[in-house]
Amino acid sequence: MSQTSEATTDYSTKGAYVHTGEEFNRDTHYIEDRIVRGGDNPNEGRWPVEPGRYRLVAARACPWANRTIIVRRLLGLEDVISLGMPGPTHDVRSWTFDLDDGGKDPVLGIERLQEAYFKRFPNYPRGITVPAIVEVASGAVVTNNFPQITLDFATEWTEYHREGAPDLYPEHLREEMAAVNKRVFTEVNNGVYRCGFAGSQEAYDKAYDRLWTAMDWLEERLSTRRYLMGDTITEADVRLFTTLARFDPVYHGHFKCNRNKLAEMPALWGYARDLFQTPGFGDTIDFVQIKQHYYIVHEDINPTQIVPQGPDLASWLSDHGRESLGGSPFGDGTAPGPVSEAERVTAGHNPLYPA
Amino acid sequence: MSQTSEATTDYSTKGAYVHTGEEFNRDTHYIEDRIVRGGDNPNEGRWPVEPGRYRLVAARACPWANRTIIVRRLLGLEDVISLGMPGPTHDVRSWTFDLDDGGKDPVLGIERLQEAYFKRFPNYPRGITVPAIVEVASGAVVTNNFPQITLDFATEWTEYHREGAPDLYPEHLREEMAAVNKRVFTEVNNGVYRCGFAGSQEAYDKAYDRLWTAMDWLEERLSTRRYLMGDTITEADVRLFTTLARFDPVYHGHFKCNRNKLAEMPALWGYARDLFQTPGFGDTIDFVQIKQHYYIVHEDINPTQIVPQGPDLASWLSDHGRESLGGSPFGDGTAPGPVSEAERVTAGHNPLYPA
Repeated sequence: MSQTSEATTDYSTKGAYVHTGEEFNRDTHYIEDRIVRGGDNPNEGRWPVEPGRYRLVAARACPWANRTIIVRRLLGLEDVISLGMPGPTHDVRSWTFDLDDGGKDPVLGIERLQEAYFKRFPNYPRGITVPAIVEVASGAVVTNNFPQITLDFATEWTEYHREGAPDLYPEHLREEMAAVNKRVFTEVNNGVYRCGFAGSQEAYDKAYDRLWTAMDWLEERLSTRRYLMGDTITEADVRLFTTLARFDPVYHGHFKCNRNKLAEMPALWGYARDLFQTPGFGDTIDFVQIKQHYYIVHEDINPTQIVPQGPDLASWLSDHGRESLGGSPFGDGTAPGPVSEAERVTAGHNPLYPA
Repeated sequence: MSQTSEATTDYSTKGAYVHTGEEFNRDTHYIEDRIVRGGDNPNEGRWPVEPGRYRLVAARACPWANRTIIVRRLLGLEDVISLGMPGPTHDVRSWTFDLDDGGKDPVLGIERLQEAYFKRFPNYPRGITVPAIVEVASGAVVTNNFPQITLDFATEWTEYHREGAPDLYPEHLREEMAAVNKRVFTEVNNGVYRCGFAGSQEAYDKAYDRLWTAMDWLEERLSTRRYLMGDTITEADVRLFTTLARFDPVYHGHFKCNRNKLAEMPALWGYARDLFQTPGFGDTIDFVQIKQHYYIVHEDINPTQIVPQGPDLASWLSDHGRESLGGSPFGDGTAPGPVSEAERVTAGHNPLYPA
């Protein structure tokens, strides 16, 4: 369901990101189908939880897609939901499976993610975004509604969670999480794009002030809490982490979010490294693909498409000292095991996996 | 003399800075006339030292011009060589006096620096660069040969130096200084431009590696020496300082010199702050004009022309701890007095002069 009516600019397909004189506005209309326990009517947008039925398509480069890769791994859903990974760059039409043998996703057999969108809606008018969940048998996109996808992984797929999986969306925290997530989304996750794609100095200046107001709030909040919601990781940490991992490599320079580097904010930098060093977080990050994505795709703010060599990333592995705040990432649970060979980040693309 | 034969790309006039597929090559041909003690033949390029005869035209934004502003002030030449200051941005033809009343330099009476170049050579084929020294009476450029201008201030204008002026070009250090200055020029002063205006990924990657090799050499050299040549400031420090002052505000992001911020290199950052806090250095820096210059003029690498708000600059005034290395900036001499009202950097453009 939820085919939507108006076509607006989408951030993730190549083209014009900056509209002169305008603020950046993200199209937040998605295909809102859900995969739920007891889902019994795909025609009404309620698909059943079912091992092997779906394939998650998630480019490592994309912060929204990165969330789903992290949550799938934290919860141990690798064996029940397979993972297709488009390359870091894409053209105006679609993300592509250019990193796969023959340029085709080995399970879906398609070159362009667009094909799976068109299988669902032949004239799909919006951006071809990741993450997207595709039904393998039909080859059609079920949903690309990223904020719901991870929540449903946490709450609807519980039967298939690994032993020791954390509760990423605890009942008693949901109200507070909703407020935190909303502010993190509007001011930080999307706030960096508002800086980078501002169409006027005035729009940029406003966006910058909003971003840093929120960053200061987070710095303060994280100076007394090990994680955003307290002593253990939750979905809220996943959502913030994927932006923080891209902050110094991309947003600081490319999006002009440059009051400070993340590395100059003690609590946030300690927090980001703490998560990075926690299984399930840092091991999903491909800094090379991340930089290629932004610097090559956004030609209107980086016309040379040259990808910077910096920053030096070795410091992601340095001592963060966050244990002194107490807590532990998985609470009563356990960390996920090592990443499977097939899904490991390319050596040299992440300090956890040296070249 | 020294009218030059071939027109090549010049960095300081607006236009195409990046040439696809090519490395950046700076045109290093200048009008090589000199103003010297006993200079007696302008037709042969030897002009006399003479108070009041010349006007230095130097945009605060430009690192090469900034050197001359610093040296003039360190030596106390303000009363014998006046100062004209074009605004931070310029068009394809020329730097302009847009900050002056009526848009004209109050002494030369011209709107565009180009007019003074054309007074000297009617079809001057190269870039209209700052710094330039103009003979006030004729309104014609005498020289724009920036590396020689500051050396001649130090060695030819000695009769007019203030009491306590430092020896910026000591005889016994000249051989070593030549080597240091050469490496600093090719690898750092110009090296950052080579990164920023690289016309291919390959050219950028080479430029980046060269720059950081030199930055590591400087970090090492300055970890045991308070100043580049030892215990007191020299011309070599002036030449490095104007690049370092622009490093985090401009070169790190705009030119993709982003392995580290300057602020992440302990010796270099301490050194840069030590100089910044020394009278004659930091008090010549206009961070607002600097950022406007690069981000607005270089449309081919920043098509939106949006000027970043960051970085936070308050830390330029923080303790640098460099006194522990011994030495003192002026040796047996003294610091220059306060900047005259007329030449003071605009409040809010430099942490020394809060808004």
